[in-house]
Amino acid sequence: METERPSPRYSSIDAWEPREILDAMIEGQFAAVAAVRAARPAIETAALAVVRRLSRGGRIVYVGAGTSGRLAVQDGAELTPTFSWPQERLLLLMAGGDDALLKAVEGAEDEAERGAELMRRHAIGEADVVIAVAASGTTPFTLACLREAARRGALTIGVANNRDAPLLAAAEHALFLDTGSEAIAGSTRMKAGTAQRIALLMLSSLVMILQGRVYEGLMVDVQASNKKLLRRSERILARLTGGRDAAEIDAALRRADGSVKLAYLLLQGHGLDEARAALEDARGHLRRAVKALAGAPI
Amino acid sequence: METERPSPRYSSIDAWEPREILDAMIEGQFAAVAAVRAARPAIETAALAVVRRLSRGGRIVYVGAGTSGRLAVQDGAELTPTFSWPQERLLLLMAGGDDALLKAVEGAEDEAERGAELMRRHAIGEADVVIAVAASGTTPFTLACLREAARRGALTIGVANNRDAPLLAAAEHALFLDTGSEAIAGSTRMKAGTAQRIALLMLSSLVMILQGRVYEGLMVDVQASNKKLLRRSERILARLTGGRDAAEIDAALRRADGSVKLAYLLLQGHGLDEARAALEDARGHLRRAVKALAGAPI
Repeated sequence: METERPSPRYSSIDAWEPREILDAMIEGQFAAVAAVRAARPAIETAALAVVRRLSRGGRIVYVGAGTSGRLAVQDGAELTPTFSWPQERLLLLMAGGDDALLKAVEGAEDEAERGAELMRRHAIGEADVVIAVAASGTTPFTLACLREAARRGALTIGVANNRDAPLLAAAEHALFLDTGSEAIAGSTRMKAGTAQRIALLMLSSLVMILQGRVYEGLMVDVQASNKKLLRRSERILARLTGGRDAAEIDAALRRADGSVKLAYLLLQGHGLDEARAALEDARGHLRRAVKALAGAPI
Repeated sequence: METERPSPRYSSIDAWEPREILDAMIEGQFAAVAAVRAARPAIETAALAVVRRLSRGGRIVYVGAGTSGRLAVQDGAELTPTFSWPQERLLLLMAGGDDALLKAVEGAEDEAERGAELMRRHAIGEADVVIAVAASGTTPFTLACLREAARRGALTIGVANNRDAPLLAAAEHALFLDTGSEAIAGSTRMKAGTAQRIALLMLSSLVMILQGRVYEGLMVDVQASNKKLLRRSERILARLTGGRDAAEIDAALRRADGSVKLAYLLLQGHGLDEARAALEDARGHLRRAVKALAGAPI
């Protein structure tokens, strides 16, 4: 396997000067981004398919083991605070359970039957999207999840760093990230991990943008749930309204229970019920809600 | 703050074609790697200081909140499976507790007093290294951890993406990652997060290499704790011994209880007690143990 192959380029890395070691690692990281760029057409096609599938109301399911699993889970965990993706439409499945986020759970990645069983227990079905990540593309747990999900009709996306990986062959959408061998042989947290992170980030960010969860380059789906996010919400609203009064903005945010999109519509002069209904009709797509309300009396 | 600033370049991103959105994100990711490259001298200096400090027997402590915290915790969680860094010398502290790895915990990042209290409760002291990560560089929880750790004499490393961040000013080693504004304003999981991941990865990998946990470019500190790692251990030993017999290698790995370094010394013909003692004397540094044993009778 390419990801496990020791490269002669690095066979004496432990005897190099620190500066040389760092340079080798940095150059590898540039290569990791280039590997994602090469996968751009596949990411685009996958994102469009995900958006279509999610319109049926299903879940985004992330699965993986070890480093790949942690990266998968992290991408998923960020969707709620960043884009207000509903918690109940998100499933983060790590081999070995949540404990494996903090420390390696012995043998967890080999538990194929457990993977398949998780797909059944969570009733994965045709409305769902399963994103399975494994650098090797052979991890038994992850492969079993993806295969069982596909069998149950879910849209499947496989992310792996070896060209002929079974995970890529089994997935409806295969994201192959050609990162090659690592500076420390087999340490796929390095190039492979960075490429996975970026591919997941781009896929999920594009999906959220296409769903209308970003407006004028701003995270309008943010919830003002802590001080930083409250300040960010205020700034977003100040920007969108061309600098409306801070007290007005705060009052609108309070009436909207921290929802920036709702607060924006209130600041445009719409009533609370009307604004809420418009957002609901537009499935949260602010640009569409604004358009729909444009004809309505204020 | 630079990380929160909406950029005019992206103000209509949600109206672009998917391909353009992906291109903008990929270019930002290249810029994120470049930001780490600019911080290379600071990473090198920090790594050397970490190695010196850890020779006192202390812990590596990762702290953070939200995306930055998840990246910090992930880097730390990988040190044990990759390099056999001892579990008891690792502390992974996430604002809001471990639950926050999977979902945002409201207000957790604002809990400054809780941060300081954690440093006291875990008796952080002069032998420890605290790595604190916050894109904004102002996160109250993270800043309080770092300040209290510094007050207690720990070596402190601050990682942030805003130049004048208090976290950088308070840290003994400041890793400033100049990633600028994000394609989705304030979404620091994008460029800032990738740069943090890479900086942490390079810092900890260099620290582990300098400690002798990599030999001939191979992860000789790997523990054969699952099928993939067993196969990797066998391959490493086959490579280091110039293709010794598989049965011999497996027997040595079993005698060494899965430790590749110990198995390697056994395969060189040394006795179990002798090899174990040499590794202990060399604090696990295989190259040094090999040298020390070179004069000893076999």
